Amino acid sequence: MHELKLPERLLLGPGPSNVSEAVRAAMAMPMIGHLDPAFLAVLDEVQQMLRAVFRTRDALTLPLSATGSGGMECCLVNLVEPGERVLILQCGVFGGRMRSIVERIGATPVMIEAAMGHSVPVQATLDAIERERPAVVALVHAETSTGVAQPVEEIARAARASGALLVLDCVTSLAGMEVRFDDWSIDAAYSGTQKCLSCPPGLSPIALGARALARIAQRKSPVPSWYFDLNLIGSYLGSERVYHHTAPISAILGLHAGLTRVLEEGLEARFVRHRAAHEALVAGLEKLGFQCLVAERERLPMLNAVVPPFADEAGLRKRLLTEHGIEVGGGLGTLAGRIWRIGLMGENAQLSVVTRLLSALEQIV
Amino acid sequence: MHELKLPERLLLGPGPSNVSEAVRAAMAMPMIGHLDPAFLAVLDEVQQMLRAVFRTRDALTLPLSATGSGGMECCLVNLVEPGERVLILQCGVFGGRMRSIVERIGATPVMIEAAMGHSVPVQATLDAIERERPAVVALVHAETSTGVAQPVEEIARAARASGALLVLDCVTSLAGMEVRFDDWSIDAAYSGTQKCLSCPPGLSPIALGARALARIAQRKSPVPSWYFDLNLIGSYLGSERVYHHTAPISAILGLHAGLTRVLEEGLEARFVRHRAAHEALVAGLEKLGFQCLVAERERLPMLNAVVPPFADEAGLRKRLLTEHGIEVGGGLGTLAGRIWRIGLMGENAQLSVVTRLLSALEQIV
Repeated sequence: MHELKLPERLLLGPGPSNVSEAVRAAMAMPMIGHLDPAFLAVLDEVQQMLRAVFRTRDALTLPLSATGSGGMECCLVNLVEPGERVLILQCGVFGGRMRSIVERIGATPVMIEAAMGHSVPVQATLDAIERERPAVVALVHAETSTGVAQPVEEIARAARASGALLVLDCVTSLAGMEVRFDDWSIDAAYSGTQKCLSCPPGLSPIALGARALARIAQRKSPVPSWYFDLNLIGSYLGSERVYHHTAPISAILGLHAGLTRVLEEGLEARFVRHRAAHEALVAGLEKLGFQCLVAERERLPMLNAVVPPFADEAGLRKRLLTEHGIEVGGGLGTLAGRIWRIGLMGENAQLSVVTRLLSALEQIV
Repeated sequence: MHELKLPERLLLGPGPSNVSEAVRAAMAMPMIGHLDPAFLAVLDEVQQMLRAVFRTRDALTLPLSATGSGGMECCLVNLVEPGERVLILQCGVFGGRMRSIVERIGATPVMIEAAMGHSVPVQATLDAIERERPAVVALVHAETSTGVAQPVEEIARAARASGALLVLDCVTSLAGMEVRFDDWSIDAAYSGTQKCLSCPPGLSPIALGARALARIAQRKSPVPSWYFDLNLIGSYLGSERVYHHTAPISAILGLHAGLTRVLEEGLEARFVRHRAAHEALVAGLEKLGFQCLVAERERLPMLNAVVPPFADEAGLRKRLLTEHGIEVGGGLGTLAGRIWRIGLMGENAQLSVVTRLLSALEQIV
């Protein structure tokens, strides 16, 4: 096997996004033990910075040793028991993934589906909570397969009033747009490191509020997964530091560096930056004949689903990659071959990045 | 939050072990997409190198996006169905972990336990396979909690003759001692990256033979975990490259560099190096009054369980860490407070490392 030589890429797909020098340097630090006091201090700081990013005062936060999809599985297998009803809002691929996980638990998914390119209507959701009395309501804040932003706050309030727990997928939204764990009455949320946090993929930051932790403590059946059992993981994070599995040290050092940058910039400034890059991108793409899949008021800033003005979308994506070193994403599921997904996440939510993409597109189209 | 500054450590515990400059440099490479042709070529090479390390011609190998414990869960939830009997050999903590996973599946664990500090007797295991006719036999090759090597070959042959699948935990053994997937008739094996492969923790290299894959294809019930469902993971690894979850790019680049070093050195040379370091360590420790927990013929080379000749073992481990920058492990479970676990894994299986540890101990004791 030869030495690794990889091309430099500008990553404007649905994730991973590019990673800063600071994060890369942290990933390359010498190894240290997962029970070393110096590492445990880093882990404490990561948990504290995650509370700031999720905007929660005292939820349990942790970097789960799995990708964002593992975070989804972890939250659901801990909070849902066999036979329970789970109301799932689906406006794309990731709501469907929740359904598959809930079915494997032996619980009953109750789906509310949005029309393609739209969010799930709030009133229909409130009615469904009232009618179905689910144990858990689960929804995707920023649906990466369609670029749709799902309103959360009113739904979360209704879930809490009805006694249901609210599980929020923030894989794509966290650190790129407003996520308010406490103010919105979220009970459990999970994210991924490779989107707006601009770290490598491999960890899932998770937040669990007091009601979620109480539900886990009161379970009638064991958590079906040993690896994702938050009772066991919590013993390592708590003061007793009981060994569960060996934490992915380097990834957590990288996340520490990434979170430090996020908080140094400030969340509000970061949201403004994502919004400005998004608006410049949409304006430029529309001039080139692209159409947005999603109506303006429901668009995500960090993930732009657009219909290209040419038939051979895969061929042009390939040219963009090989001739210009720029990656954009294709469509997922029923949207495969029909849309592009252009990400402006974290480090890449910059006007200079938008300009580079637009001028490459001008040359190709 | 301040800049990360971590002390340099010589990691002689049960893992993680120290990581080479080459692996660290690979972890720090610029990010690239998980569907980028250049990354998929790296992934192909990782799978190919894993086949060489597991010594298999054509098993499916993959770097699972989880730690070694996730590899254990992945193999068991894919290969075991509810109601089936699983024969588990337990000579320490990790056999007990298998039991917990099997119970959560709704299957029936049948345990054979070894006396503390011993392997499970082969004849008793052969009798149990004959008597219990289990669907799966699961065992730990190198039990990290006690330092015991479990004989595998005869048991694996009997399992195959009886129609049972054999699942082998190679978390600590792989690349540090003989593991022969094909020659021993192993059906599924999993490891961790942070032991004798000398990479950061976070991935679990897995190998699945044809009989294991056929069993998964013929399952009557869905795999209880979505994240660990090998039907879905296999679609990303196969020619169609169907998106399942975002691969932990940096960790896989690091593993590529680590595997390259392992194969450049050669497996046989690596095993000899581990054995030589182990023998020098034991000779030196016995002079200092340490006693081995395990009889000579059952000792692991890379993980040495020893009884220290002083009462305050935790205090002396702390001094070793803070005064000499050397980490050794304490006991797990019932052995907590009673033994040290000294790892000589991968990069650290060197006579110079043994000398450094012994002279630090001479100063402290």
